[in-house]
Amino acid sequence: MDRRSFVKNASVVAAAGAVPQADEKLTFVHHVFFWLKNPKNKAEHDQLLNALKSLGKLSVIKHAHIGKPVVTEFDKAVTDGTYSFSVMLVFASAKDEQTYLVHPEHKAFIDKNKHLWSKVVVYDSQLI
Amino acid sequence: MDRRSFVKNASVVAAAGAVPQADEKLTFVHHVFFWLKNPKNKAEHDQLLNALKSLGKLSVIKHAHIGKPVVTEFDKAVTDGTYSFSVMLVFASAKDEQTYLVHPEHKAFIDKNKHLWSKVVVYDSQLI
Repeated sequence: MDRRSFVKNASVVAAAGAVPQADEKLTFVHHVFFWLKNPKNKAEHDQLLNALKSLGKLSVIKHAHIGKPVVTEFDKAVTDGTYSFSVMLVFASAKDEQTYLVHPEHKAFIDKNKHLWSKVVVYDSQLI
Repeated sequence: MDRRSFVKNASVVAAAGAVPQADEKLTFVHHVFFWLKNPKNKAEHDQLLNALKSLGKLSVIKHAHIGKPVVTEFDKAVTDGTYSFSVMLVFASAKDEQTYLVHPEHKAFIDKNKHLWSKVVVYDSQLI
């Protein structure tokens, strides 16, 4: 990793209030895209959105972004703007993502909300 | 946005060396996944990877993560681990992403490297 990337990563660690350790790097990104089963149902939309926002506050997560689709003119031909919610979670390591995946709150989130989505796609990414 | 998200976001702005402005938020994530045409061709793999790393240093980008796929046991059934490279760029605004998309270096990146990939998928996400 070049110095610039390191500085960026170290600062994002600090962003969550943790003191960066010498061996701590923001190496892991967990991208998830959800398609609501009934996207026009406001109660279901709000339930999933609120559950995602709440889940994003778990302390093992260094940075969380919950988003909705945008389709730009420039990238229109290659953009998937059909999803309902995007979730981008940054972890200090693959091990921290594993802690998150098996966390009781993550498992409870799935159990309580899985009936709301028709499709979910995960892309896990380790920093190169 | 709750205070915790704001603090995280403000800190990520600082991560790129900029002084956060009162109205500056990290609202926009540009996710891109590339599939190499010839993933076993090291020269082509390295050309695209180096080009992506170089592109990620443009100053309009607040945070860049260039990654490779990981498939966890937990999310195996819903994970797409077939891509070659992931790119996750954080922008302070949709306007900044637009600046990036039409930047001469981004256009040159596409012209010089588009023959290397068989598929590219973009998910643009505005913070909810």
